[in-house]
Amino acid sequence: MQNNVRIQYQELRSWAEKCLVTAGAETKMARVMAESLLAGDLLGFRTHGIRRLPYNVKQLVTGNAKATGTPTVVKSRAAVAHWDAEHLPGLYVMPQAVSAAIDMAQTCGTGTLVVRRMEHVASLAAYLEQATAQGLLINIVVSTPAQASVAPFGATSRVFSPNPYALGVPTSSAPLLLDMSLSVTAAGKVRQAYDHEELLPWEALVTAQGEGTNDPASYFGEAPRSALLPLGGLDLGYKGYGLCLMSEIWTMALSNYGRVQGASDGECNTAFIQVMDPEAFGSSEQFLHVTDDLLQRCREATPIDDSAPVRIPGERAAALKAEQLALGVSISGLTWQKLQRCGERLKIAPPQSVTEE
Amino acid sequence: MQNNVRIQYQELRSWAEKCLVTAGAETKMARVMAESLLAGDLLGFRTHGIRRLPYNVKQLVTGNAKATGTPTVVKSRAAVAHWDAEHLPGLYVMPQAVSAAIDMAQTCGTGTLVVRRMEHVASLAAYLEQATAQGLLINIVVSTPAQASVAPFGATSRVFSPNPYALGVPTSSAPLLLDMSLSVTAAGKVRQAYDHEELLPWEALVTAQGEGTNDPASYFGEAPRSALLPLGGLDLGYKGYGLCLMSEIWTMALSNYGRVQGASDGECNTAFIQVMDPEAFGSSEQFLHVTDDLLQRCREATPIDDSAPVRIPGERAAALKAEQLALGVSISGLTWQKLQRCGERLKIAPPQSVTEE
Repeated sequence: MQNNVRIQYQELRSWAEKCLVTAGAETKMARVMAESLLAGDLLGFRTHGIRRLPYNVKQLVTGNAKATGTPTVVKSRAAVAHWDAEHLPGLYVMPQAVSAAIDMAQTCGTGTLVVRRMEHVASLAAYLEQATAQGLLINIVVSTPAQASVAPFGATSRVFSPNPYALGVPTSSAPLLLDMSLSVTAAGKVRQAYDHEELLPWEALVTAQGEGTNDPASYFGEAPRSALLPLGGLDLGYKGYGLCLMSEIWTMALSNYGRVQGASDGECNTAFIQVMDPEAFGSSEQFLHVTDDLLQRCREATPIDDSAPVRIPGERAAALKAEQLALGVSISGLTWQKLQRCGERLKIAPPQSVTEE
Repeated sequence: MQNNVRIQYQELRSWAEKCLVTAGAETKMARVMAESLLAGDLLGFRTHGIRRLPYNVKQLVTGNAKATGTPTVVKSRAAVAHWDAEHLPGLYVMPQAVSAAIDMAQTCGTGTLVVRRMEHVASLAAYLEQATAQGLLINIVVSTPAQASVAPFGATSRVFSPNPYALGVPTSSAPLLLDMSLSVTAAGKVRQAYDHEELLPWEALVTAQGEGTNDPASYFGEAPRSALLPLGGLDLGYKGYGLCLMSEIWTMALSNYGRVQGASDGECNTAFIQVMDPEAFGSSEQFLHVTDDLLQRCREATPIDDSAPVRIPGERAAALKAEQLALGVSISGLTWQKLQRCGERLKIAPPQSVTEE
């Protein structure tokens, strides 16, 4: 196994951009796509970061992803809009959608966008700071109409995609950034455990016999395969089931594009993006006071383990981002091998600043 | 123990209304309050139904709840508003707030209200059908600034109130209605188990030693007492912790009224109410098609137990409501004893149609 490497952020971004341009993307699109992928790595969401560059290159080369154009506005009202991305890269469309939601929030108090048929958006955490940096709240829900991975509560068969929920909140220091699946764990974590021949740390899956299991092989093996359990698991999964229903209705039903319409859309995502302006409800300053006070109460809560004080979601991500911008983006040996092969196929010279860790 | 009873809905509503008028509420306010309480019972949320009448009577009699007036608009923008209820009954203010959110949604696509300082709102499920009956989506989050019951992930001490999340979605048949706490279980369930000297069905609590427990006595006994675990429990509670943060920020931070400002507000609630109009995003008809298709996929999922097919949240509530409107509202013997005492103190003759079950 190759060692992990570090590569200077700007150089890696520029290299990824060249790969995407060579694969067919417009220069501006390539730049935004590279930034969206690396924003995930900077915050520590490596399963959905630069690791997904080869997939995006492939989608552009094969024409599955559109390399040019803008989303179509299907419908809109003062505080909402519905876009059809018609297979444009989600990495490119998401920042535009957040920007449009911000504009509406600044006028109406909230701005809500539903965007269908984006190529895979990767890490939702990557899109939160665009709003929090302007003092705005944001929440994002994403689903995948062609995927079924998560069982409803009380069932063994797969209905929902492993939908993530993300939340960004401005504070007086680092923003609160949350990005999590509404199932017991994300499908990517099951894949990771399977690849490393490890068991999952929890019974995240339900077998065809209706029993909980932590064996990822049951999920990928021969039929009948296991399904991901909704958050709450075998006992309390009616809560995660409710959240999965919410996430698919807010995305697929609001965009009128569900599991029938999107059955052959592969990894295409539908997103629900909502931005809220604290100034529309009250005072931004008081908003920060109340938020800071709440987070301080969490930090001061008695920890179960004295050496592990309560953490605020996003704090570690902010530290990791600062560190990686200074020292270079950290990439696993396996991912770096795949990126090198991707660059070679496109005949793009590798970045210069690669150092082994 | 007295047997359960049934009382005709209209008669029980009228009796509750008389109690509230005698306690000091305006006629219109009393009527809306009685309807809000009974809406919880009709849907099966009995811990937050007519059982809470004596509490509401007490709050009116003592002057803790304001018996007249309307909420003050603190601030508003096209699609949002912030109200201060100044201790008006939440049972009275909530339907007005949902109505205002509906009006904004019909103009702007979404309508979002934050309402602070309402006396306890009881069951959130009671307020959902007002929106779903008009083909609109609704979600509600509520917190209680003066209460701390739920531990942050990794902690043993209490920070958050046991905040509920509710969701209402129109379908072609009964609306999808969800009303759940963002902790492993609701505080009311812990109280219920304690009163019946039973253990909880799950380890919903964390002791001061950092261990999970299902013993409700640990929650009410002498210090150091246990705390409610966030949804996900000891292993995956960072997800529920994130949802608790969301719920307190959307309510307390947006209303600029947090745990410092509301420290002595007892059971007063702050609510975040959001209504969305599917017609603003696309076609209401297509919205229903996609929603119906998703719910049908859930119903058809392979059940763990053949005799227990997958349920849609709200289906059982709709059946229960129809049954109780026909046969009378079902009330436990214990609750009926308390209601009788409440009526006697106010010198209101009991309903005629009481039948034992």
